[in-house]
Amino acid sequence: MDKIKIFAPATIANVGPGYDIFGLALEHIGDTIEMSWRDDDQIQIDPLDGFPEIPVAASKNIAGIVAQEMLKKQNIKKGLNIRISKNVMPGSGLGSSGSSAAGAAFALNELLGKPFSSTELIQFAMLGEKATSGKAHADNVAASLLGGFTIIKGYKPLQIFNIPFPENLYIAVVHPQIEVKTSDSKKVLKKELGLDAVIQQGGNIAGLVAGLMGNDFKLIGASMNDLIAEPIRSFLIPGYHQAKKMVLENGAIGCSISGSGPSIFAFTDGKAKAKEIAKLLSDFYNQLEIDNKVYCSAINKKGCEVKL
Amino acid sequence: MDKIKIFAPATIANVGPGYDIFGLALEHIGDTIEMSWRDDDQIQIDPLDGFPEIPVAASKNIAGIVAQEMLKKQNIKKGLNIRISKNVMPGSGLGSSGSSAAGAAFALNELLGKPFSSTELIQFAMLGEKATSGKAHADNVAASLLGGFTIIKGYKPLQIFNIPFPENLYIAVVHPQIEVKTSDSKKVLKKELGLDAVIQQGGNIAGLVAGLMGNDFKLIGASMNDLIAEPIRSFLIPGYHQAKKMVLENGAIGCSISGSGPSIFAFTDGKAKAKEIAKLLSDFYNQLEIDNKVYCSAINKKGCEVKL
Repeated sequence: MDKIKIFAPATIANVGPGYDIFGLALEHIGDTIEMSWRDDDQIQIDPLDGFPEIPVAASKNIAGIVAQEMLKKQNIKKGLNIRISKNVMPGSGLGSSGSSAAGAAFALNELLGKPFSSTELIQFAMLGEKATSGKAHADNVAASLLGGFTIIKGYKPLQIFNIPFPENLYIAVVHPQIEVKTSDSKKVLKKELGLDAVIQQGGNIAGLVAGLMGNDFKLIGASMNDLIAEPIRSFLIPGYHQAKKMVLENGAIGCSISGSGPSIFAFTDGKAKAKEIAKLLSDFYNQLEIDNKVYCSAINKKGCEVKL
Repeated sequence: MDKIKIFAPATIANVGPGYDIFGLALEHIGDTIEMSWRDDDQIQIDPLDGFPEIPVAASKNIAGIVAQEMLKKQNIKKGLNIRISKNVMPGSGLGSSGSSAAGAAFALNELLGKPFSSTELIQFAMLGEKATSGKAHADNVAASLLGGFTIIKGYKPLQIFNIPFPENLYIAVVHPQIEVKTSDSKKVLKKELGLDAVIQQGGNIAGLVAGLMGNDFKLIGASMNDLIAEPIRSFLIPGYHQAKKMVLENGAIGCSISGSGPSIFAFTDGKAKAKEIAKLLSDFYNQLEIDNKVYCSAINKKGCEVKL
């Protein structure tokens, strides 16, 4: 194969109590990546949509880093053109870097004739995450590659699985357009958690998994609490607590920070409610005079996919 | 109703990664409690099977404490005869005190014409647990009262739910007859957990719930790791690591400490394998010249029940 065009979905990581464990893929938003072989051995990055902050040097661009690692592993000296069209801004908390890393890994694997397993692709994409955020976390890249609701059971060895979720579960997302870099956002987290908090967090993790698998919206909602990131990162997001209160009072099932923020997401029962909640969130941030984008989505079951 | 006889199952708490969260009820082993009204206002405890270490003063016996609290709440001044027949030794890690607390709450609720909800019974039983172990943990009493595989989602407010599990999931238990008191055993645990350990523990909690609900024995087994209690309490149980290694090499799905120990349990696929594993465990402790009792059981779906 000479060239390919793929879509790599944006993702919500952490998903309430699942810090560094849970991830889910969104529909329609994410990266479109076109990748083709070159005659020379250069990797040329070309962001289509003009995000000036995306580095174009292959060794600094997350897609370039992932591609270089994969080519090195396969001992291939060919170059690549990588054209990335993003519709999720970097620093949104919607796995912008993860989509590019996952998408690059998926696209190059297709070009190469699929030599790598899904787990290997996740591992390559994690190398990209490590280069940008300082930590090789898998929650965004696994969700983007595999689609669905993904759980990182462990990192040593890397064990990832998907769980079923209610068909009618929708997501409203608002991205208040202030920038919170993952690498900054990780710095403010506590390095230890008290045993009582560990127990509460565990109860919420168990509740969210059981609620999703058992179609129990009430249990899902009751479990959407986080004692690791939310208490700290919420202070970096203007209006977070008011916004959360408002969406819960208006029928959202649960609400939390997407990834390291500043995006906020809410689970809803059905698409109409997701639209209503997204509108409320947009109005809320408009009132605060903070530019924002809102999205509505079901959970994307496909993950990365070839576009024709 | 003047008198009643009930069975309150023994339980396994923690169940691998679910410290203070997960519990399950066993079949056939536990407390049989006969309870009847007295003409005076005394609460008379009468342990049938002669465990000399069980206090018979109502204010010190866990069943007596629970009964007193329930009568106080109902503003009833009548006395009770409580005859407790135990076939699980106190200090086994099989929820011996929890069975008595749960059984007393269940029996008295029947005698009173069921004024209390399951959650209220759990809360009364927790008062008994608090009096004996210093902490009002719910994992044993909830499993004994409700049966099945129970999850304590949170304590404030108390939220408990059951999850489905594979029909063919069996349990082999060995109780090496050395005493580890819960109150001592809690003392040795760390008060804080590092963030990496919290993430691993969370992954295992999610994996165990998903494995149980999804009939995935492999995932259940991979998730039976605990970073809170097992690394510390295992040192209080002679031969623990060898025993665990042996049962896993012989086809057990997973193995961990029951409650605060010293009992050890293993999950198996089917009853025959549970019997085989129980035999291996018994032989192992016989070789170490440590008196032991072994049990085989499915998960008890009924919880506390009236005996005719």
